[in-house]
Amino acid sequence: MIIEAALMLLPFLVSILYSEVVGKYFLIVALLLLIFGFILYKVFAGDSSFYSAEGFVTVSLGWIVLSLFGALPFYLSGEIPSYVDAIFETVSGFTTTGATILSDVTKLSKSINFWRCFTHFVGVMGVLVLMLAIIPTKSENMQIMKAESPGPQVGKLVPKVADTARTLYLIYIFLTSIAIISYKLSGMPLYDSICIGFGTAGTGGFVVTANGCADYNYVSQTLIAIFMLVFGVNFNLYYLVLIKKFRDALSSEEFKVYIGIVLFSVAIIFFNVLNQYDSYNDALHNSLFHVSSIMTTTGFAIGDYTRWPVLSQIILLTLMICGACAGSTAGGIKVSRVIIGIKSTINELYVQLHPSSVKVLRFEGKAMANETVSTVLAYIIIYIFICITGIFLISLENFDFATTISSVLETFNNIGLGLSKIGPKGNFSIFNKFSKSVFIILMLTGRLEIFPIIMLFSKKTWKRSR
Amino acid sequence: MIIEAALMLLPFLVSILYSEVVGKYFLIVALLLLIFGFILYKVFAGDSSFYSAEGFVTVSLGWIVLSLFGALPFYLSGEIPSYVDAIFETVSGFTTTGATILSDVTKLSKSINFWRCFTHFVGVMGVLVLMLAIIPTKSENMQIMKAESPGPQVGKLVPKVADTARTLYLIYIFLTSIAIISYKLSGMPLYDSICIGFGTAGTGGFVVTANGCADYNYVSQTLIAIFMLVFGVNFNLYYLVLIKKFRDALSSEEFKVYIGIVLFSVAIIFFNVLNQYDSYNDALHNSLFHVSSIMTTTGFAIGDYTRWPVLSQIILLTLMICGACAGSTAGGIKVSRVIIGIKSTINELYVQLHPSSVKVLRFEGKAMANETVSTVLAYIIIYIFICITGIFLISLENFDFATTISSVLETFNNIGLGLSKIGPKGNFSIFNKFSKSVFIILMLTGRLEIFPIIMLFSKKTWKRSR
Repeated sequence: MIIEAALMLLPFLVSILYSEVVGKYFLIVALLLLIFGFILYKVFAGDSSFYSAEGFVTVSLGWIVLSLFGALPFYLSGEIPSYVDAIFETVSGFTTTGATILSDVTKLSKSINFWRCFTHFVGVMGVLVLMLAIIPTKSENMQIMKAESPGPQVGKLVPKVADTARTLYLIYIFLTSIAIISYKLSGMPLYDSICIGFGTAGTGGFVVTANGCADYNYVSQTLIAIFMLVFGVNFNLYYLVLIKKFRDALSSEEFKVYIGIVLFSVAIIFFNVLNQYDSYNDALHNSLFHVSSIMTTTGFAIGDYTRWPVLSQIILLTLMICGACAGSTAGGIKVSRVIIGIKSTINELYVQLHPSSVKVLRFEGKAMANETVSTVLAYIIIYIFICITGIFLISLENFDFATTISSVLETFNNIGLGLSKIGPKGNFSIFNKFSKSVFIILMLTGRLEIFPIIMLFSKKTWKRSR
Repeated sequence: MIIEAALMLLPFLVSILYSEVVGKYFLIVALLLLIFGFILYKVFAGDSSFYSAEGFVTVSLGWIVLSLFGALPFYLSGEIPSYVDAIFETVSGFTTTGATILSDVTKLSKSINFWRCFTHFVGVMGVLVLMLAIIPTKSENMQIMKAESPGPQVGKLVPKVADTARTLYLIYIFLTSIAIISYKLSGMPLYDSICIGFGTAGTGGFVVTANGCADYNYVSQTLIAIFMLVFGVNFNLYYLVLIKKFRDALSSEEFKVYIGIVLFSVAIIFFNVLNQYDSYNDALHNSLFHVSSIMTTTGFAIGDYTRWPVLSQIILLTLMICGACAGSTAGGIKVSRVIIGIKSTINELYVQLHPSSVKVLRFEGKAMANETVSTVLAYIIIYIFICITGIFLISLENFDFATTISSVLETFNNIGLGLSKIGPKGNFSIFNKFSKSVFIILMLTGRLEIFPIIMLFSKKTWKRSR
C-alpha cells in the first residue's frame, strides 16, 4: 500500500504538467494509502516468512486491496461515477486485461487516463514482486513469487528471490523504455507513446484516443505489433541473452513453438482475409497485428476483425485461450502448458499401443516429474471448469452466444478484446453490476493463475491453526 | 459382414409387409456381404487372438467396412442419390448420432427408413461385440471389448468375455422391447414404436415422421424422455439389479451424479423458460424432454429450444459435452470421466495447499491407479484438441459461430441435434462433401472413443512386424 501511494505521485505529476485540478485526488488517495499502510504495518509486522497457503492468500488479498484503493481516483474525481465500474476499470488495468466500461476514453482528463494506463505497467510484475525487489528480507519468499509469476514453473534465475525480482524488473523497465522511445521516433505524440508503451509492456490494451491504435501511422502500428510479441516471450530468455547464453535462449522449446504458432496463424489468416483488403501488404499488416495482439492477450485493434471470415475468427478465439509464453506478461493457458498437455496425450497414446512400455515426458530437454504433468493437466481442467461457470453466470444477461462466451474468455484470459457486442467497437458498459462483479473475479483469477484465488475462498485455508 | 447380411433380412421382411419393391436391394447387398465375408474368412481365418493394436485397428476397420456396405441400400435404391450422403446417414446411424442430411424423412419408403432406424439398434453394442456373443472363441478377445465399450473401464461382469457380451446384449434387447411395448400402449403406431424404440435404445435420434417426436401425444413423449434416461445409465447397474445386488446398483457414484445433473439442469431450465410456456406443466415437460434427449446424446426434439434464453442453451451445450454414464449407449465425455477429472483437480488443489501430503483419488469407493487418472486427463485433452481441429475444418464453410461449433460437437458426441442452422428444424444437407467427410470421421472417432481411430492412422501401428 505504501508503494502504491508512491506510484500515485506519477499521475499527480502529469496533472501538474497539464495543470488539471483532478490531480489532487491522487494526493488524497496516496495519503489514505500511507495511513492505512502504516497502521497495518505497525499491527502485523513481525515474522515475515510464509507458508504455501499464506503466500497464496497474501497475494490474492493484496491484489484486491490495491484494486479497491486504485479505483478511488476514478471514483472521487467523478470521471467514472459508479464505484463498481471504477473497480472494474482498475482490476482490468492491474490484471493487464484492458477491457473497459468507457465508451469514449477521450473524455477522461490526461492525468486520470495516465493512471489508467499506468496500472498496466504496475500490474505486470506484481506489486508484491516489486516489493521483494526493493526491500530484501532474510526469508526466501518463494511462495509469493510462485503465486504471482505466470507459468507452470518458477525459474530461479539467480539464487536469491530478491535478486531475481530485481533482475526481471530491470529487464522489464529496459524493454518498456525501448518501446516508448521507438513509438516516439515513429511519430506518435509523447503522451500516447508512454501510455501505449505501458499497454504493450503489460500486454494490457487500454488506449488513449478514440479509435485506439487505428489512429497511429503504419510504422507505429508495425512497431506495436513487434513489441507485443516481444513482451509475450518468457522473460527468462532475456536474462539468458543478458548473460550472453544466446544458444540456450534460442533453443528454448516454448519460444520455438510460440514463434511457430504466430507464423502459422498469420499465414492462414493472411490467405483467408486476402480478398477483404486492397493490397497484400494491408492484409499481412492486419493479420500480423491482430494475431500478435490476441495471442499476447494485449487487446489492441486497428480494424474490425469481427467482419473476417469465421475461420480467422475461430483461430483468434483459439489463440485467446492458448496465450503466449509462461513467464511473460501475457494471460491465457500459456504455450508451455499446451505443449505439456499435448505431449502427455501423445505419451498416453503410445502407452495404449504398447501397454508394457514406460515413456517419460521431456520438456525443454529435461524430464518432467509426473507431479508437474498432473498439475498442468489439472490446471487445464479447472480452467475449463471456471470458463463454463463464468459463461453460465453471464448468460443470465441473455446476450448472444459470441458475446457471452467471448466476454468470459476475454476477461479470464486478460485479453481485453472480444467478439460481437464487445469487439473492437464495443465495451463492457452493456453489462449489469452482477456481471461486472463476475468479470472482476474472473480477471483476478486469470491473472493469478487460478490457485491463489481459490485458496482465498477455501474453508481449509482459514481453518489451519498454525 | 456375414452378420450384417443376416441383419439385412429384417428390413427385407418389412418391405414384403408393405409390399415395397425397394426391398430387393437389401437381398442384393446381403448377397454381396456374404460373398465378400466368405472370401475374407477363407483367406484370413486362422489365429483369432488379438494384441492391443490389432484389436483397436480391427474395430476401426470393421466399422468403416460395415458402414460402406450399410450405405448401399440407400444409394442403390436411389432414395439417397449421393453415396457420400448415404455413408453419412449410415455412419450417423451406426454411431447412434442421429444427424441427418434428409430434409423430409417421410419421402423414404418404409423399409429403407426401417433400415435407417435399425442401424441405431445394431450400432450400439458394436457389431463385433455381438459377434463375440454369438461365436464363442477360445481366446479372450478383451481388446475388442476395450475398443468398443464406451467409458474409461471395462467391467468384467462375468468371467468370460463372450458371456459378458451375451448378458449385456440380453439386457439391451429386454429394455428395448419394454420401450417399444410401452410406446405402442401409449398410442403410437406400431411401426413408429419400433423405429423410435430403436432410436431411444441406441440413443440415436432418427425419426420417421415430419415433425419428429412432436407428432406423438403427451404420454408417449414422457415415456420417451424416461426411456432415454434409462438407456443413459451404465448397463452394469442393470446387471447388478439382475443378480439382485440392488444396494450396489443404487450406491453407484456415477449414477447418483448423473441423476443429480439431470434434476439440477431440469430445475434451472424450468425456471428459465417458464414465461415462454402456457403452463408449469408444459415448461416442465419440455425441460425434462430436452435435457434427457441432449444429455443422453439421443437428439429427439419436441419443440424449438433454440428460442430459449441463452442460459438454457448454454446448459444444453454443456450437457452435450458431458454426455451420460460410461457403459451406456450415449456419447460425450461421460459422467465418470468428468467426475475423475474434477476429483483429480480438487486433489491437486489440496496438494498445493499442503505440499507434503499425498492424496489418493477414490472413485466408486475404490482407489484409482495414477495411470487411469492420467489416461482420463489425456482423454479430455485430446477430446478438446479434436474438437478444435474439427471446428477449424468446418469453419472453412463460413457458417455462423453457433452452427460451426455445435455441428462439430453434435457429430463428435454422437448427439444429432445442434443449434442455429442445424437445430431441430435444420439438417446437414447445407454442408459440402468435404465437411460431410469430416463429420463422418468425427462420428466414428467419437463413437469408438478416439483411441482406435487414431491407431488406424498411426504409422507405428502398421510398422510392427509381429
